[in-house]
Formats: sequence, structure tokens, C-alpha cells
Amino acid sequence: MRDDSETMVFIKDKPIAAIVGVGRTKFGELWYDNPEKLLFEAGLNCMQSVDKGIHRKQLEACFFGSFLYQTTNKIGLMSGHMAKELGLNIPISMTEAACASGSSALYNACVALRSGYYDVVLVGGFEKMTDRSSKISDDLMFAADPNEFSAGYTFSGLYATMMARYIHDYGEGKEECNDALAMVASKNHHHAIKNEYAQFRREFTPDAVKRSSLVAHPIRLLHCSPITDGAAALLLTSPEKAKQFTDTPINIVASKQATDSISLYTRDSITSIKATKLAVRAALEEANLSFKDIQMAEVHDCFTIEEIMFLEDSGFYSKGEGWKGVYESFENGKNGKHIMYISENSQLIVNPGGGLKADGHPVGATGVRQIYEAYNQIRAQAGGQQIEGPIETALCHNIGGTGAICNIHILRKG
Amino acid sequence: MRDDSETMVFIKDKPIAAIVGVGRTKFGELWYDNPEKLLFEAGLNCMQSVDKGIHRKQLEACFFGSFLYQTTNKIGLMSGHMAKELGLNIPISMTEAACASGSSALYNACVALRSGYYDVVLVGGFEKMTDRSSKISDDLMFAADPNEFSAGYTFSGLYATMMARYIHDYGEGKEECNDALAMVASKNHHHAIKNEYAQFRREFTPDAVKRSSLVAHPIRLLHCSPITDGAAALLLTSPEKAKQFTDTPINIVASKQATDSISLYTRDSITSIKATKLAVRAALEEANLSFKDIQMAEVHDCFTIEEIMFLEDSGFYSKGEGWKGVYESFENGKNGKHIMYISENSQLIVNPGGGLKADGHPVGATGVRQIYEAYNQIRAQAGGQQIEGPIETALCHNIGGTGAICNIHILRKG
Repeated sequence: MRDDSETMVFIKDKPIAAIVGVGRTKFGELWYDNPEKLLFEAGLNCMQSVDKGIHRKQLEACFFGSFLYQTTNKIGLMSGHMAKELGLNIPISMTEAACASGSSALYNACVALRSGYYDVVLVGGFEKMTDRSSKISDDLMFAADPNEFSAGYTFSGLYATMMARYIHDYGEGKEECNDALAMVASKNHHHAIKNEYAQFRREFTPDAVKRSSLVAHPIRLLHCSPITDGAAALLLTSPEKAKQFTDTPINIVASKQATDSISLYTRDSITSIKATKLAVRAALEEANLSFKDIQMAEVHDCFTIEEIMFLEDSGFYSKGEGWKGVYESFENGKNGKHIMYISENSQLIVNPGGGLKADGHPVGATGVRQIYEAYNQIRAQAGGQQIEGPIETALCHNIGGTGAICNIHILRKG
Repeated sequence: MRDDSETMVFIKDKPIAAIVGVGRTKFGELWYDNPEKLLFEAGLNCMQSVDKGIHRKQLEACFFGSFLYQTTNKIGLMSGHMAKELGLNIPISMTEAACASGSSALYNACVALRSGYYDVVLVGGFEKMTDRSSKISDDLMFAADPNEFSAGYTFSGLYATMMARYIHDYGEGKEECNDALAMVASKNHHHAIKNEYAQFRREFTPDAVKRSSLVAHPIRLLHCSPITDGAAALLLTSPEKAKQFTDTPINIVASKQATDSISLYTRDSITSIKATKLAVRAALEEANLSFKDIQMAEVHDCFTIEEIMFLEDSGFYSKGEGWKGVYESFENGKNGKHIMYISENSQLIVNPGGGLKADGHPVGATGVRQIYEAYNQIRAQAGGQQIEGPIETALCHNIGGTGAICNIHILRKG
């Protein structure tokens, strides 16, 4: 991590892109909608959110992401579905990167906008999972090494291995470590109470999390993000064009992707995500920021251990100290509207709308939904879950599989 | 189509990208390889083909494409598989656009190279289909409107509808029209005889095509491209960097994508592919060329009707006249090494290595394999299937589904 945070921070003259509109669907069990319709609804909501309006014919390209649409929904070639819905013949790209599909679509859009080849693009992510609940745990293993599947692993099992090792290395015999892993869930459910789009809007105490049914030791049901249907969308423009659409665009000042081996057994460490470390470092460098400048983060809390690993991989807490920071922050902050993580000389609100854990995790939509939340928080239009006090800078962290890919985007007030 | 072909032709100062290496696997029934291995083999062959050498650490990003890898091969998140194989942590993008997946990966790579954000990228396409032969005809319908699937259509059935309508509109009662549709197959099989990587290397007379078993009236078995396993890869650089890798790079002077509604029943015409028309026109404009400047084309002959539609959609033949041109060209040229299509004042060799029809159609690999072929033809290193006389300019045409997406790339000697 960079350590020049005490010096003045400069933002490069030109951001990568501007966000001028966002949209989403409710997340949950959406039995009556098919995936194309969910994506179209999110896209339409996004277009309608643009302050000064936009016509679909102003779109120059689309970038969509999803994971299991073929197996689970028996559809493909979304380019053709969306060309039909939009009545357009523009380039439409479809990206798959497991749970990072949404942010990978965004990353690709950012690469395209860097070029100036396009100026106005729609980014979307979607997933429709609940129809296939009986098979989905097999399908989710498409995000892992097939050898891990044939060895008997489930996706929860892989994260259970990571969590078990984390506890073994850093919290063995300390009940506070188990408490901290439950507090992540408790906090995120607390944050989702006022989120009208969230899948789960009820409180769970850390004790309730620890008493929930065992999924794969030491992971219990309430350590897991849910199976969810939903979609989200963003309208991106070149920085130059943004003011045509709104007086208050939110800038993307960093967009970085890193990958890593898909196989857990090949990793240097399974209590840390190398792709996260690399992408966070590169993104902060691109934005010319220190992590201390980040006021809120959307973190990929697919399982609670992952939120703690992020807090360590990003440098917010030292390695192995994350659970202690979470424990103390939760104990000190549990009566607030948002529970803020406190470290030595920095503070951070993580997942103010509930994260994957409580807002829901429609896999391909998640990376885009994170940007939706950060955009609204920075524009102070996040409704019930609006953070008290202004948010200038937000970081979004979306990973695929057990960390084989990570996209980091940093958003900043224009 | 532009009609300034008689005036001098200028190429823009700066091509979009340069190709400096290509690789592929054999196409066919490759029972002993999994998809990741095929892609890796093609990538390795590509890297090893680079005249002045390249180290994998010089790669800045990868762009891969495939269609049915999840359903058919039960894998996903190829970014993680390839990060593992390459031992790198670079951005790796995975694109799905049905049969146009490979060229969509290339299109995305070209957008990225336009930006100068990357300078050296690997592009790959792959598909492993034969293991799932009993289910593949269902899976292929992921490339179509789900309503068409529930109405009973197979993928061959959709093209059969297009072919039947073509015959009805333009060749009713004319046996030469049926002959022409068979001659496309006969020509492409003839072209594949010397192609050591091709799936099928035997001659079929037009009569044999017409006598082959009925698949979906009027499509017979030998009107269809096969089910195939295989992979192909390209190494792309910015034009500025190309000479570091070879003294004879081949330039990409146009890269265009168009989309259209996935549903046949919504189209203005089912005997013409609108996305092809739009993308060809845009590509010629970008390259500042007329179609008459194109000496060879890799055409998406998934079914023989599609090659004839391309000849009309590109403007090489007038609408409804394609079959006549094919018939006459075949009759006049059938004794040559390559059978050349002749129109009023232009000539064109299509699919000199056998096309999808005979070289094989591993769906996601096809769009990349086309570039492989064109690159080798322009560099006069295509082996047994090398066209007699120099090739300066080649066009590659790859479509998805029944034409819901089309990518056109134009390659030109540097």
C-alpha cells in the first residue's frame, strides 16, 4: 500500500469516465421475470434516472455481464436479445467472469471509454438464479477449478476452507474471532433495513448468525450471501460529454482488473486474495489516492470471511488483525445507523445498503449494483440508507470465484 | 455499398492494430483434450509463431471468446483458468456471442488497442462440443429466441426456414439454385483438401451434397457445418509496437460490429442478414476500401445458404443473384486449386482453407481461426491451401446465431 496519504492528494485532470445515471430492479425471488426482462427493466430505470434525459438512440454501445444465464436460464447471445429490446444495431458485448461479471463489463466499458471510441455506453449486469435452486450449487462450481468440484467441494466449501484456515492462523481459540465473522453479517443486515430494493430487511444478531444451520464448517447459513434474482445498470459517458446529461456526474477515477489462478491449491495463501491486493494497489495509484481517502466501500461479502479478507488485503487492517478491528468497530458502533470500521487513523463504512449479504447477490448484477449504491451515496440520494455526512470517494470491490479475478473501481464526486 | 471504388484507395495512416502471430489446434473430435488445454495449446502455438519471439510476461491482457463452455464443459471463469496456465495476473476478458464469440473477443481487443491502453494482447477462441453430441442441438438453441426453441425449432431448422424462403423468392423451380447451394459445400470441402488442420479433408460433389440425408427441409447433412472441437489464437499489438515482433505484421484496418434482433420473426427479411450489411458497410468505410478491393474473404458458412447471403449482403452479387453467381463460378472454376467467385467486375476467393463447412466449426474458435487463415494467406505461408498469386487484403465475416450479431474485420498487408 502507498504510504503518502498525509501528503496532498491530486486527482488526475481527466477521469476515465463519468456516471450519469443508474438503475436497478428489486433483488430477491423474482418468479415472474425472465433475465432479459430484468436487464431491460434495470436499463430502463437507469435511462430514466438521467437528470437531463437521454434517448436510447444516443447509446453507442452496451456492455453486459452475467454468469449462469446459459445453464440456468437456457439462453445465450444476449447481444441479440438486447438489440431486439432496444431496437438498435449497436455493438453489444457480453462478458462472463463468474461473480465479477458485472464489474468486468464495467471494466471493459472503461477501457473502451479511455479510447474515446465510444462516448455514451450502457453497462448492465443480471442474474436469475432462484428458478434453479436445486441445481445452483453445482452450477456455482463453474467458478472454481473442476478438480475441486470432483474432489467434492461446494462453493461454500471452498470459502469454508479459507475461513477455517483464517481462524486457525489468526483466531484459534478466540471466540471474538468467531464473533467478528458473525458481526459482518449482522452489520450488513442492519444496513439493509432501510434499503427498499434489498432481498432481506431484518436484523440478525451475531448470536443468531452463530446459531444458524451449518452449511460447511465453519460457515453457517447466515455467513453466506443468498441466491438472488436481479439486475442493475449504469450509464457511462466520456468526461467531456457528462454535462450534457447531468450537472452532477460522478467520476470513475480508477478502473483496474487483476486475475489469479482459479485453483485454491495453487495459491500462496488462502487467507488473502492476491487479485484484490494487486487491483486495489493499481487502482489507488491510478486515482492518485491513499486507501485512507476512501470513505465508503462496496465490498464483495459473498461470505463474511471475504469482507474481513478485503479489509486486510486493502491495507485498512494489518494481516490477521481484521477480525479484531471488526469486533471492536461493531461493539463501539452497533447503535449507529451505519456501523463504521475504525482503524488506527482511518475510518470506513462498508456496504451501507447491505452488501451481497443482505441486499442480495444476483451474481452478474452485483458488480454493477455496487456502483449504483456508491453513485447514490456520493450524490446523497441513497434514500433510507444514505450515510450521514457527505461521501466524496467510494471504492467498489467485486471478485469472481474464490478470487481468480478482481475488479476495483474508485468513484469520486465530479 | 460505397461506389467510389474506381477512385484511388487510401488507407488511413494508422491501422487499428497489427497481428504479429497466430496459432491454432487441429479441428475435429478431440476426445483427449479439455477446453482450457485447447485454448492454451492454440495460445502457445501463437506465441511460438512470433518471428522475433515473445515472452508471456510481455502480454498485457487477454481477450477470449467461447459459447457453450459452461453447459457443455461445466466450466466457467476462464480468466482464472488462463491466469493459472499463464502464471500471470493480467486482465483477462471472456466474451460470449454465440458463433461470433471469437470475433467478438477480437473486436473488444481492437477497441482496447484503439485506446492505447494496452499494446500487446492475446486473443483466443475455443469450443469443445463433441462430448455433448446428444445434447448439443438443444444447447445450440441458446443462440436463438427461446420462443423459437419452444416452438420446436432446431438451429438447423431456423436456417432451413431462411434457405426455404430464399429458394422460394429467388430460385423456385430452378434446379440450378439447389445446385448452387450444394456447390458452396462442394467448393469448401475442395478447399480443405490440403488443410492439415481441417476436420474433413475429402471431396464431395454437389450431387453428393444433394443426396445426403435430410436434416430440416431443404437443408441436408452436407449443407451444414459440423460439430467440432478446437481453438485458435492471435497475438495483437499496437501498430507502433508491431516491428518489435516481426518485420511483416499484418494490419487490421477495420473492426466493426453490428447487432440485430435475435428473433427471426421480427426481421425485415430472412433472406438477408442486416447485421452483416451494416458491419460490412461500416468496415469498408473505416478501411477506406471498396468491396472490390477484397481479394479473399473468410465467410461464416455455417450453412451453405449463409455464404450465398453474405455474397449478396456484402454487395458482391445483387440480391437474389448470389446463387447464379455461385453456380457459374463453380462451373467455370471447378478444376482450379481454389474456386473463385466472379461477379461483374470483381473476383473473390471465399474460405480458401475450407471454411466452417470443412475446416470445422468449433463455435467460439471460428472467428479467430478465420483471422489465422487470412493472416497466413496474406503472408503467403498458408501451406497447401495457399492461394496462387499475392493476397493484399482479406475480409473476415463471423456472425452469431441467425445473424443477431456480426463482426467484420479487414486485414491488409503492412
